Amino acid sequence: MPAYPSLDALRAACAALPAGDEAAAAAVAARQARLTKPPGSLGRLEELAAWMARWQGRALPVLERVQVLVFAGNHGVAARGVSPYPAAVTAQMVANFAAGGAAINQLAAVAGAALRVVPLALDTPTEDFTAAPAMDEAAFLDAVNQGAAALEPGAGLLCLGEMGIGNTTAGAALAAALFGGGGAAWAGRGTGVDEAGLARKRAAVDAALACHAPALADPLEAARRLGGRELAAILGATLEARRKGVPVLLDGFVCTAAAAPLARLAPGGLDHARVAHRSAEAGHARLLAALGQAPLLDLGMRLGEGSGAALAVPLLRAALACHAGMATFDEAGISGAAG
Amino acid sequence: MPAYPSLDALRAACAALPAGDEAAAAAVAARQARLTKPPGSLGRLEELAAWMARWQGRALPVLERVQVLVFAGNHGVAARGVSPYPAAVTAQMVANFAAGGAAINQLAAVAGAALRVVPLALDTPTEDFTAAPAMDEAAFLDAVNQGAAALEPGAGLLCLGEMGIGNTTAGAALAAALFGGGGAAWAGRGTGVDEAGLARKRAAVDAALACHAPALADPLEAARRLGGRELAAILGATLEARRKGVPVLLDGFVCTAAAAPLARLAPGGLDHARVAHRSAEAGHARLLAALGQAPLLDLGMRLGEGSGAALAVPLLRAALACHAGMATFDEAGISGAAG
Repeated sequence: MPAYPSLDALRAACAALPAGDEAAAAAVAARQARLTKPPGSLGRLEELAAWMARWQGRALPVLERVQVLVFAGNHGVAARGVSPYPAAVTAQMVANFAAGGAAINQLAAVAGAALRVVPLALDTPTEDFTAAPAMDEAAFLDAVNQGAAALEPGAGLLCLGEMGIGNTTAGAALAAALFGGGGAAWAGRGTGVDEAGLARKRAAVDAALACHAPALADPLEAARRLGGRELAAILGATLEARRKGVPVLLDGFVCTAAAAPLARLAPGGLDHARVAHRSAEAGHARLLAALGQAPLLDLGMRLGEGSGAALAVPLLRAALACHAGMATFDEAGISGAAG
Repeated sequence: MPAYPSLDALRAACAALPAGDEAAAAAVAARQARLTKPPGSLGRLEELAAWMARWQGRALPVLERVQVLVFAGNHGVAARGVSPYPAAVTAQMVANFAAGGAAINQLAAVAGAALRVVPLALDTPTEDFTAAPAMDEAAFLDAVNQGAAALEPGAGLLCLGEMGIGNTTAGAALAAALFGGGGAAWAGRGTGVDEAGLARKRAAVDAALACHAPALADPLEAARRLGGRELAAILGATLEARRKGVPVLLDGFVCTAAAAPLARLAPGGLDHARVAHRSAEAGHARLLAALGQAPLLDLGMRLGEGSGAALAVPLLRAALACHAGMATFDEAGISGAAG
């Protein structure tokens, strides 16, 4: 039995997201104020500890089990010349993940995280969304449910990523549908298209918006018509994480766009998620502003695969280690500040 | 026998810094271009791998031994009300480091780094530099030499940090002497002074600049007159690391100011060092701009202790893990980009 047997069931779940544990977050803030450091001097590490507490529902949050989930899908729109790489690379990269040769393999290991890669019907690309919905309802729900089912029980943190030749065009189209603007605002160089390729991406986004305009006010319809299987799976996993008390690190542009329908469906729908890294992909800064997200890292990466999310895991480990391990002023016998 | 028995010997060493290994850096760039990712898509991780290679002198740089060195000192200028904390807190925090209760203890553990704390004559504060040189030549050289001697043989990376009540005022005075501007440009809130305290810091910097003006064109004299023991030790350790082929991560404002004389003494004098984190301390952004340094992290921290440097270590581990562990396109049998 899938978590979401119908679009109505999915919609109902998105409208009834659990709230965070404000008592746990407040307990973190109270403890931070007693630790042996000037108040606030650990900056965002203090905020991250409270965020983890709020969504894990624990005043002393833990990171024993970190899961990196990478979803892969193929895209009909790839036939429109929106990527310098052939669509066959999606499956080749999935094999590279399995063999341990990709960036995310190394980054998950450094993060102390378990990596799972979920290929989604790679032999059946989505429809070209410039002319038809990318997925029918059954395909969309199946991908959402595969995403939800992939969350490991007991994970303390979920890092999300994607692989799919052509999917920055899908991400741009979805972001445009959710937040306004067209291809010029949202399409970027992706893996490295030239000027002509960039023009094709922009045109594809604009064509998609025109084709599906009447239906795009509904964020789930936007995700079904303009997204892709791996984007739908990210949406499902992000939703499931909220319901299971698992904080989420989102990766770059495509991943953030994939989860963004949650923020449009419910106020605070992405409060349990943080964007880990500001991608060099052009549309990401705009998307971050639309979502009110300040990324943890800004290192000029634009790879996907969950690379930015995995890279940020040690920052959370550091935040929790300081929170749990530091002495208080009283314990250490240290004089406080004057006044 | 200390590394630098005289100021002249120190000056000569600063004028004869070894160059980096450009062949090792070029080998990194060549390998990065063959790894299974779009060219440049790992952003600064690629540049960091080349940087590590250049200064370790190895085409496959390694991070088996990471050292965090924290120097502590006391400051005569603290008597001028430039910190909300009493000077006794320096020694209390050194005890906290020894007991494992400070932020840097937790952050070094997360970084997989060995932490060493070196207190420098805490019972003998430097002179109040608004009226006299902070240190005489013997005291300055002793601190520089203690810094140089503290570098562990065989370290693959050195993270530097400091502790010293009043030392953001010393850092501001030193930065002002090296790069121009006065107290208003360089003094900040430090551990959290109020408006009156900030005014006292600015006045202290301006008084120091006026008192020592004739001698400040010499960066080493500026470090001796306006710095402090822990700042001089950071300078010595940074210099020693350059001579021993050890890349350096500098922490925040005080640490960066302490190492900055090297950049003024020789072109590229700090090329083997990266600033790990942009401190929330007001003068740090200005100092980074003066040095042409783009920090790796920007998380609103302002603690010192080497906290920002330790926090950035996993980024370097990630960069090296990708560089060494990823498959090439040929190895993985993955199609390349068109055109």
